[in-house]
This record gives sequence, C-alpha cells and structure tokens, in this order.
Amino acid sequence: MNYCSQCGAAVTVYVPAGDHVPRHVCTACGMIHYRNPKMVVGCLPEWQGRLLLCRRAIEPRRGYWTLPAGFMENGETAQDGAARETLEEAQARVAIGALHSLFNLPRIDQVYLLFHARLLDEHYGPGSESLAVALFDEATLPWDELAFPVIDAALRLYFADRRAGRIGLRCGDIVPDETRGYRVRLYPD
Amino acid sequence: MNYCSQCGAAVTVYVPAGDHVPRHVCTACGMIHYRNPKMVVGCLPEWQGRLLLCRRAIEPRRGYWTLPAGFMENGETAQDGAARETLEEAQARVAIGALHSLFNLPRIDQVYLLFHARLLDEHYGPGSESLAVALFDEATLPWDELAFPVIDAALRLYFADRRAGRIGLRCGDIVPDETRGYRVRLYPD
Repeated sequence: MNYCSQCGAAVTVYVPAGDHVPRHVCTACGMIHYRNPKMVVGCLPEWQGRLLLCRRAIEPRRGYWTLPAGFMENGETAQDGAARETLEEAQARVAIGALHSLFNLPRIDQVYLLFHARLLDEHYGPGSESLAVALFDEATLPWDELAFPVIDAALRLYFADRRAGRIGLRCGDIVPDETRGYRVRLYPD
Repeated sequence: MNYCSQCGAAVTVYVPAGDHVPRHVCTACGMIHYRNPKMVVGCLPEWQGRLLLCRRAIEPRRGYWTLPAGFMENGETAQDGAARETLEEAQARVAIGALHSLFNLPRIDQVYLLFHARLLDEHYGPGSESLAVALFDEATLPWDELAFPVIDAALRLYFADRRAGRIGLRCGDIVPDETRGYRVRLYPD
C-alpha cells in the first residue's frame, strides 16, 4: 500500500496513538488503513459417501486437486459463500450443513471455514476455474496431488472422523515447519 | 474507495472479465481492489460459572455491555486474537477453548467467531476501551444494556445450552427485521 484510497495522498507506516500495531496512515487526511485476514469459505460436498473435488485450472497450484472454496464476498454469509463457490467451481448445487473445520493460516492471513455439504443431485462439471471435477472415496482420492496443506488436513480429518464415528468441529493451524514445509497443529476438543 | 492504493490513480467500479461482482479497478495500473468481510474474534470468559463482560468506553454503543471481542489482526490465529482482545479490553488472561458460535452479519460484512474461554485467575479490570469490567451470572447480567444483537444472541444461546446440557457449535445470521430492527436466524444442527 503506497497511497490513500480515500484522498490519493501518500501513506506512511507507524503505530497510531492508542494502537499497538504498525498501520498504513494517510499523510494528508490521517485515515488509518487497517488490513485484516480474509476468510476462505468452502465445503466437503458428499454424494453417496464420496466427495466432490476440483482440479484447478488456475494458479496457484494449477492441475492439483482441491475442495470447492474461495474468498468470502461482502454481503453474503459464510454458508452462502461456500455454496456459491461450489456452484462456480464444480457446477454443483449443495445443501450446506454443519461447520466441519476452522483452520488458521496466519502466515498468509487467511482463515478457512469448511462446511459439511450434500449434493442435491448428481449433476456436476468443471466451472471456469476447474479443469475437471470428480467424486472420490478415501481409497481413490488423489492424495499426492492435493493443492494445499489445509485441504489435505481437512480431508484426512474428515475420513478419520467418519471412520471413528466422531462428529463435531475440528480447529487447527497450518504453520511453517522446517523439515516438511508445513505442519498441522490441531486444537484439543 | 476513490484512489488506487498501489499507484495513486483514480479507481472506477465495474465487473471485471470473468468476474460476477462489481469491483474497484484502477484506471491506470488495472489493479483490482477486492473487499472482503472481516472477522470479529472474541470469547465468553468464564470464572466459576459467571461470565466476564465489558462496558464500552468507545463508540459505537458507549456505555453498553459486551463480550471482549474485536477485529482479528493479520498474522494471528482467531484463538490468539480472541485472547488478545480479552487482555486488551478486560485485562484478563484466558485459556481459549472450543468455538462457541459463528454469526454472519452480512449487512455490515462481518463474521463473529466467539470461543469458550476460562479465566486463568480472578484478575481483571477495564482496559482503555472499557469503562468497567464485571462478572455476571444469567440472573444479574444487564440484558437490557447489551451493545449489539450478536452479543445478546450468543449470551442467550450460551445460558440456554448450558442449562440443557447441550454442547456444540451454534451458527446463525443476524439479519434486519422490519419490526424489531434485527432478528437471529439459527442454523439447524
């Protein structure tokens, strides 16, 4: 951020009075430009025990598989955003259920909110941001070709919990790890 | 938003190619400036069956009572943000537990994430944004002087669920209502 979006003057970075974090502050009108994490909303769309995944047609991670998910928009609910992303990326209509997982990605200022979901019918297909869309069970899922650590973490928990009959929200952090690139830090129940 | 924060040129509003929502786009460098909902993170800090609330020293709703909560910052987790807000507003150290509720406020582009929490000791007091801080049980809580509908909704669910022995996340929307100003739309389990 170089310029004030309000008045167009230059911004400078300092800790405003009464604050404790450096902010971008306008040198002319004094406006403080806060920057906050974004929510990525998505779902685990189920059809007869299998999950619908999308193969990404866009960067980052083009060609890799992911759950339908994307940035939540102003004016919508997290649940509506998850359903919208599923329609856009997988041409699939879903009934959104309970929240499956909340993952913090503090290194890139994102929070993932992934919901349980049920396909309303067997219609699905690639949207403009997908190369392919397909249903997978645990055995056939392309575990080595998943797009993001958070998707891998959510899918592993989903199948493990389903096997164990465990119901309820999972919370975790995706944090950098020197040896493996990242690791998942789960919160206790 | 009037000016591009990247290059300082004027922005204009239109639906970019491949998009479906009007965005602020720079007339010079072409940068698309997305705007997304913010997370408000907070907690229900419990001490021996009572909850710690703060009387607001700042607008909006100065003088009214609320749970410790505030905008999540870049670089932190939702849980850490909830603990930070509790320390700032109520001088209280907490252990953050499970997620109690997720409320969408689509009219003002906010999502509230409120966590169960336990005070680590009986120390608390007003931070710079609070006039007073106090522990309340359900009978003594200032129900008619709560700052925001979302706080009222979370507190009512908290006590009702505790009485009923119900454990588990609550999700809801706070939506405008012609007769009462707002109403709470709860999601089914």
